[in-house]
Amino acid sequence: MNHNSNDTQKNKLTGQDVAKHSSKDDCWVIIHGRAYDVTEFLPEHPGGPKIILKYAGKDATEEYEPIHPPDTLDKYLDKSKHLGEVDMGTVEKEEKAADPDEEERQARIARMPILEQCYNLMDFEAVAKRTMKKTAWAYYSSGADDEITLRENHSAFHKIWFRPRILEDVENIDTSTTMLGSKVSIPFYVTATALGKLGNPEGEVVLTRGAKKHNVVQMIPTLASCSFDEIVDAAEGDQVQWLQLYVNKNRDITKRIIQHAEKRGCKGLFITVDAPQLGRREKDMRSKFDDVGSNVQDTGGDNVDRSQGAARAISSFIDPALSWKDIPWFKSVTKMPIILKGVQRVEDVIRAINVGCQGVVLSNHGGRQLDFARSGIEVLAEVMPELRRLGLQDQIEIFIDGGVRRATDIIKALCLGAKGVGIGRPFLYAMSAYGLPGVDRAMQLLKDEMEMNMRLIGCSSVDQLGPEFVDTRGLSMHTTGVPSDTLGLNVYDPLAGPKEKAGERAKL
Amino acid sequence: MNHNSNDTQKNKLTGQDVAKHSSKDDCWVIIHGRAYDVTEFLPEHPGGPKIILKYAGKDATEEYEPIHPPDTLDKYLDKSKHLGEVDMGTVEKEEKAADPDEEERQARIARMPILEQCYNLMDFEAVAKRTMKKTAWAYYSSGADDEITLRENHSAFHKIWFRPRILEDVENIDTSTTMLGSKVSIPFYVTATALGKLGNPEGEVVLTRGAKKHNVVQMIPTLASCSFDEIVDAAEGDQVQWLQLYVNKNRDITKRIIQHAEKRGCKGLFITVDAPQLGRREKDMRSKFDDVGSNVQDTGGDNVDRSQGAARAISSFIDPALSWKDIPWFKSVTKMPIILKGVQRVEDVIRAINVGCQGVVLSNHGGRQLDFARSGIEVLAEVMPELRRLGLQDQIEIFIDGGVRRATDIIKALCLGAKGVGIGRPFLYAMSAYGLPGVDRAMQLLKDEMEMNMRLIGCSSVDQLGPEFVDTRGLSMHTTGVPSDTLGLNVYDPLAGPKEKAGERAKL
Amino acid sequence: MNHNSNDTQKNKLTGQDVAKHSSKDDCWVIIHGRAYDVTEFLPEHPGGPKIILKYAGKDATEEYEPIHPPDTLDKYLDKSKHLGEVDMGTVEKEEKAADPDEEERQARIARMPILEQCYNLMDFEAVAKRTMKKTAWAYYSSGADDEITLRENHSAFHKIWFRPRILEDVENIDTSTTMLGSKVSIPFYVTATALGKLGNPEGEVVLTRGAKKHNVVQMIPTLASCSFDEIVDAAEGDQVQWLQLYVNKNRDITKRIIQHAEKRGCKGLFITVDAPQLGRREKDMRSKFDDVGSNVQDTGGDNVDRSQGAARAISSFIDPALSWKDIPWFKSVTKMPIILKGVQRVEDVIRAINVGCQGVVLSNHGGRQLDFARSGIEVLAEVMPELRRLGLQDQIEIFIDGGVRRATDIIKALCLGAKGVGIGRPFLYAMSAYGLPGVDRAMQLLKDEMEMNMRLIGCSSVDQLGPEFVDTRGLSMHTTGVPSDTLGLNVYDPLAGPKEKAGERAKL
Amino acid sequence: MNHNSNDTQKNKLTGQDVAKHSSKDDCWVIIHGRAYDVTEFLPEHPGGPKIILKYAGKDATEEYEPIHPPDTLDKYLDKSKHLGEVDMGTVEKEEKAADPDEEERQARIARMPILEQCYNLMDFEAVAKRTMKKTAWAYYSSGADDEITLRENHSAFHKIWFRPRILEDVENIDTSTTMLGSKVSIPFYVTATALGKLGNPEGEVVLTRGAKKHNVVQMIPTLASCSFDEIVDAAEGDQVQWLQLYVNKNRDITKRIIQHAEKRGCKGLFITVDAPQLGRREKDMRSKFDDVGSNVQDTGGDNVDRSQGAARAISSFIDPALSWKDIPWFKSVTKMPIILKGVQRVEDVIRAINVGCQGVVLSNHGGRQLDFARSGIEVLAEVMPELRRLGLQDQIEIFIDGGVRRATDIIKALCLGAKGVGIGRPFLYAMSAYGLPGVDRAMQLLKDEMEMNMRLIGCSSVDQLGPEFVDTRGLSMHTTGVPSDTLGLNVYDPLAGPKEKAGERAKL
Repeated sequence: MNHNSNDTQKNKLTGQDVAKHSSKDDCWVIIHGRAYDVTEFLPEHPGGPKIILKYAGKDATEEYEPIHPPDTLDKYLDKSKHLGEVDMGTVEKEEKAADPDEEERQARIARMPILEQCYNLMDFEAVAKRTMKKTAWAYYSSGADDEITLRENHSAFHKIWFRPRILEDVENIDTSTTMLGSKVSIPFYVTATALGKLGNPEGEVVLTRGAKKHNVVQMIPTLASCSFDEIVDAAEGDQVQWLQLYVNKNRDITKRIIQHAEKRGCKGLFITVDAPQLGRREKDMRSKFDDVGSNVQDTGGDNVDRSQGAARAISSFIDPALSWKDIPWFKSVTKMPIILKGVQRVEDVIRAINVGCQGVVLSNHGGRQLDFARSGIEVLAEVMPELRRLGLQDQIEIFIDGGVRRATDIIKALCLGAKGVGIGRPFLYAMSAYGLPGVDRAMQLLKDEMEMNMRLIGCSSVDQLGPEFVDTRGLSMHTTGVPSDTLGLNVYDPLAGPKEKAGERAKL
Repeated sequence: MNHNSNDTQKNKLTGQDVAKHSSKDDCWVIIHGRAYDVTEFLPEHPGGPKIILKYAGKDATEEYEPIHPPDTLDKYLDKSKHLGEVDMGTVEKEEKAADPDEEERQARIARMPILEQCYNLMDFEAVAKRTMKKTAWAYYSSGADDEITLRENHSAFHKIWFRPRILEDVENIDTSTTMLGSKVSIPFYVTATALGKLGNPEGEVVLTRGAKKHNVVQMIPTLASCSFDEIVDAAEGDQVQWLQLYVNKNRDITKRIIQHAEKRGCKGLFITVDAPQLGRREKDMRSKFDDVGSNVQDTGGDNVDRSQGAARAISSFIDPALSWKDIPWFKSVTKMPIILKGVQRVEDVIRAINVGCQGVVLSNHGGRQLDFARSGIEVLAEVMPELRRLGLQDQIEIFIDGGVRRATDIIKALCLGAKGVGIGRPFLYAMSAYGLPGVDRAMQLLKDEMEMNMRLIGCSSVDQLGPEFVDTRGLSMHTTGVPSDTLGLNVYDPLAGPKEKAGERAKL
Repeated sequence: MNHNSNDTQKNKLTGQDVAKHSSKDDCWVIIHGRAYDVTEFLPEHPGGPKIILKYAGKDATEEYEPIHPPDTLDKYLDKSKHLGEVDMGTVEKEEKAADPDEEERQARIARMPILEQCYNLMDFEAVAKRTMKKTAWAYYSSGADDEITLRENHSAFHKIWFRPRILEDVENIDTSTTMLGSKVSIPFYVTATALGKLGNPEGEVVLTRGAKKHNVVQMIPTLASCSFDEIVDAAEGDQVQWLQLYVNKNRDITKRIIQHAEKRGCKGLFITVDAPQLGRREKDMRSKFDDVGSNVQDTGGDNVDRSQGAARAISSFIDPALSWKDIPWFKSVTKMPIILKGVQRVEDVIRAINVGCQGVVLSNHGGRQLDFARSGIEVLAEVMPELRRLGLQDQIEIFIDGGVRRATDIIKALCLGAKGVGIGRPFLYAMSAYGLPGVDRAMQLLKDEMEMNMRLIGCSSVDQLGPEFVDTRGLSMHTTGVPSDTLGLNVYDPLAGPKEKAGERAKL
Repeated sequence: MNHNSNDTQKNKLTGQDVAKHSSKDDCWVIIHGRAYDVTEFLPEHPGGPKIILKYAGKDATEEYEPIHPPDTLDKYLDKSKHLGEVDMGTVEKEEKAADPDEEERQARIARMPILEQCYNLMDFEAVAKRTMKKTAWAYYSSGADDEITLRENHSAFHKIWFRPRILEDVENIDTSTTMLGSKVSIPFYVTATALGKLGNPEGEVVLTRGAKKHNVVQMIPTLASCSFDEIVDAAEGDQVQWLQLYVNKNRDITKRIIQHAEKRGCKGLFITVDAPQLGRREKDMRSKFDDVGSNVQDTGGDNVDRSQGAARAISSFIDPALSWKDIPWFKSVTKMPIILKGVQRVEDVIRAINVGCQGVVLSNHGGRQLDFARSGIEVLAEVMPELRRLGLQDQIEIFIDGGVRRATDIIKALCLGAKGVGIGRPFLYAMSAYGLPGVDRAMQLLKDEMEMNMRLIGCSSVDQLGPEFVDTRGLSMHTTGVPSDTLGLNVYDPLAGPKEKAGERAKL
């Protein structure tokens, strides 16, 4: 039987044909109506063989789709394993077992608040948490180890307080600024986040459209669900995009990616330097285990399942040997400004200046890599005074990301010297819950907050913001209270307010 | 048909007449027995058109009453739209649908604790929270963004501890002092708060009577439910009142208000400088949404409802361009002392002295404007040492407001150099729950606490209070603990006290 | 009818006689089998008239007993109002209405843990909380205002950490020391607490016996339920007792008390200086309201009930004019060492030295007086370095009380320079729950802990303890965290441990 | 009847024979099929007589086994009391009463997560907590007093944050190091913990095998359930073991132990110096009470049960007089390096150097001894700067233990100057829940975390770690928040996210 793709029209495979190949030693799967022999690929699959074997002999499209860009099979599976079209009418529709979790989720979707009820970025997250698929939620929301850095990222902003000035004319507020030479309407950008189709079937292009509408920059992720070209194609007019880059061990591939991006008009190359290996995210790992783990019976120590969540599955190509000595090479292959994403201490900011980088992003990768990495905003407060002391503050543009949820967070970062802030998850959540209208409203809410709070701090344009407007005395303290005196707390009888009238039970 | 108001006696409108005009394009409403054509006014209504349309063709008095001073319609709706009296007997009584929330509220009112069970200012708030209408509660109790400043305002007092002295003769305690030259019996004043009728049908005059009884000053709010003259008329004898002023874009209106207040005997002009735009208060916005949002069906991003709670509805006239250069003009139109209300850093206190202000209120507007604005008491601790260093401490009277709930809070403020403190919400809650007797008891409780605590700190008059009586080392630290180690806390098995005897279930 | 007490034998009153006098204008009560006419006394009753009127015409003994020392009626009610004996057989036994609260309490008493299950001082409190009468619990456990100082007192010890030394011979531990010249077996004393009979029908003499057994000093309270002489009579051998003194406005009474105490052998005069007026304790006030408030119907503001809990009821005699200039007089009327109890700052310790006091107790009255008064242990850390700097550390004995619950607390105080610590409530709770065996075990547990912890810190006698054994860097910080970001915390999805196997619901 | 062990073959005792001796005055028990007369031993039993009397006349093996090493009876009970073999077929099988707690535990074991679901060390603890016997859990998990130090030990690591460097070649990570001259694959060792058979019937040898597999050192505990030789015999090849030593009052015994260990190849002598007396652990005491306390009826104070949990039961031989002057003697009896385990301040580290110790373990005994002892990691931060200042940092190897749960904890310790860290409880929990596979996986997880986090901090070998990689500004603060304002918190109405659609109840 010849499965050459030229004659598929007359000679389609049937579901029965494929179903015969359903074992570890002979494994076919159907994706987007075409069959593939993945037997030899099984041990190499970055996500582990188990998840493929679940679909051996069956249609795997639904599972495959959100976590593989369209060109994946062409790139990674030899053409000889492409078996050609399948007559999908002959493929047995899987009688899906009633899934009470999914039914509850659908019921929650039916009761979803309308978009106008979301008044801030946390609201979108609250809706997304209840309406997204559990595995998708786990992938987006998880962080490293105990997720302490994940939470510290936002919490750190709470240690910075304002010193507003009064009686300034704040009738007209201008929130626009420039980043790497591009004019933007407000000092945030959509930072790179992976696997957009987990949240929305259209993927990252939804963010492209939202960024266009609000005139902010989008950073295109290496690990997008959409292909790079799809995302660039979705941009309109002079819309500015940047490229986020995980550096491949194979520098030829890296060079091709960079130069293609430059040709397609990208205005900045953000090299991720805080992820030589993608982090362990236990929430994600547990979620994946729940999904594929039901047929695991053994409890022996030797047969440990090495699959570790979506993050690890997609990142094996990243080069952990990337180092400072590679920077000149990057400068030799592109004219785009080079920005290091993931810098975490002042020494490395100075080094970035010395090697000729145009910017750094102070970031801990959204709390997804090293737990107890400090927040970007805290590192910023360490960096800027030292740069000023050395007279280097104008040699580089400093960005931060991580934990930004309110316009007050953005204002604090700008007061401390950042050129702009990256926002990632909140837009993913808005997109997952409400699609483009969600992203639109999320950005509009930030703009409304920004205008309001600029006015209340007494500044009518972002260049007026400076360190005199913030009180950061508590910022660098990483305190934990003395563990509680359980016995003492248990015997304390807390004060209660006035009781309601007798005769009826009530709590006031 | 001629609806000229002169012939309404013989020619009243009927309910049916009005009911015909119940659409967006032809909208009449009845208020206090008179009909008005508000069709053209709909798009201009500061509270948004939706809330009016809910009552199109119907009697809107109950909704209208608490948030519009008596002279509103005369001021803002052209006389030609005043359609004259309605024969209210012909107006169909709306069969109110049974409202379980309201029924529960009435049941809670029936079980309300008696006044004597309120032992402190928080107790009134606890009662008000359960007995007020939800929208009124939301308006009074809400704050900006995450309400962090709202809570910090009281919490900041908890970081100040006493250093009492002993063995002073404290038999006779004199809590009286002067503010702006007026003698008062205790160093607090009733600060300006908007929309008093939301809590009590009589509105702000209840506070006037309470202030009289306890010989404290009342600050009259621009956004009162009662008219300014009603509040002044409610004062007795030499009762002192001040005017709180939101400055109108139209300075003629502002001038008229100021000069009228001066003529009526106001003894101080408090210009609000922390509210060029009234804040976003999400609790208030959500509450309003619940009220009018039921007929909202669309979830598109473009048709966003711009109505944003009571606060935004009533404040569109405020001039965001007000600036330091306007101060001389104020001095030119009045002889009243001028006090800036809402100063938040020492630089601006010094500037206020330089432009000839007689006072400042260190305030963040009760946490209703800029979240992460510092508390008044914290700013006070920043201000006074610097004024003393510059020898300016006697050039100006410093007040604070925000978060004052106990006499200890008042004493702390006076120790740190304040002349007096403003108290707002607690009296609103006392009034909402119990009317004038509530306000009376709230003030009496503060006086009792004040006398007690002056005695315990070892001071018999307020002029003895000074910085040596307080320990403020922790005041300026804005700490947040390291986020919790959830897994670790979950596995910790807290200590428990002795178990009761076996055989019977109990928790000790 | 002649009610002269001489002929009561033959001519006893009947219950019916008394029952006729049951109104506000004619009020008799029976106490310990004798009738009294308290009509004229009603308005003067420190606890308010209501509580007496509840028993008008009836037997009030049960209510009267625990809060009035035996000699009260003789002292305060004119002999003419002593109506003589009542034939108690004729007094109608009040059919007590079934009281579900009391029934539940009796059930809890039946299930009470056995004494051996109490392993520390908090355990006694846990048992007492569930088994004491609610009003008694409220009186013992309550503190001033928000009870923040009440809790800070123990919490402050948690900010002090040890720097133990190793490899010292700690086979034999000697915990004995001296206080004001008296040898004691361990450096704590039983400090004065009022109204012991609320917790145990025998009252303070139980503590006397416990103190004897463990060779520690008892301080006799002015406001004891037992009379002073009963408590002194309960002492055995050379048992040491001190006198706690509230100074009466009438100095003759005060002088008589002091000289009587000296004659009876008291070895120290502790003058309370932190209570010119006894504190407002809202828990106590609410508890009393619940007890007598049921017949209160009016909610008007003018008829406010002024009764304010047990504390206020018993303290009206205290002189708020007591001052430094009275100290020489005390020295003139007694040879006992004079100790000021309730000193709260270093300036006043120095002043106490200068006026010739032999000691001070750094104390805030167990958190019952001024809220936000600092803990004794914190004041100690302020006092001692300054005394050492001035070379005054040997001029005076410093004691502290408040919040001591563990031997580690005692050791910390001694390391910081205290001669000993006072412990009050814990022994009251032990007595209330288990009587003398409870007090005995509580003291023994402290001794066991003390020996253990001295050993572990590497000191074999109390004179070895010093500041080098403690780390107090966190002691003086009064921090409150930034108020929580409710929305953010709500959307965070906490990490969970491994799930149990599917098919069965469980939480791990 | 002659119970000489020589003729037991023909002349076994019967169950009935033994059952006759079941009183306090005549008490036999069966252990491992042999009878013993323990009547005279009862008062000497370190665990108290009660627990033995529970088994008087019966088979006590199950209770005896885990807490007594195999050679206990030979060592402590005179041969004349060894009564010989029992025909176990004649021993009445105790009809075990249905124990609902045990049934629930067995059900939990049946639902136990599979090993692969444990992703970190806390996960093993979570499983062990639910599947271990309650008394065993209480012994392992308990700490001193309020267990504040117990929890602080891990919490202290949370105050240390990273300053990672970027763009270092981290392709190959080498986590190996040396401790006391031995090469190990990762810088942790299995520290000594008592009574391994409480968690696993095989006891400490399971840890030996795990340590071998991962090439880490095991420290052999004095109080092991296995005998010392069993543990050494379980080692393979050149596996390194150390000896943990509680010093016996009888130095001959101590000398014999040390010299035997040296002969068997131990490579280090860790003398415990923080436990002159084993700590009070109330959780353990309560647990033991629950177990034996059911027949306790009296509540008198004099008949106090002195049994105080497993810890106290097994430690009465420890010499509390051990002191610095004993160190030369230790050096005279062994060539093994001498390390002091339980040092808690810098002064004693310097003294250890001066007396010629090769190492110290900064430790508070896992929080089981002195509450408010500081964590090892905090003491380390005090020690190293002082050693460096004195030029002593290379004179001694510094280890820490306590609270290590994550590889980040290990890295923090090494950055601050530790040579390695001891881990105890986590391996006990892994062993208790899953046996050797659990220990294996726990160690593998730490190795995976270690490699990952070394990579993320930018270091490829442990010698690169140093203080510049950590931010410890918050480490030494022992803060407790100001006690909460209960009334205020109760009336605050927390913000809530968007509500779901009306008509259906749900919480978002």
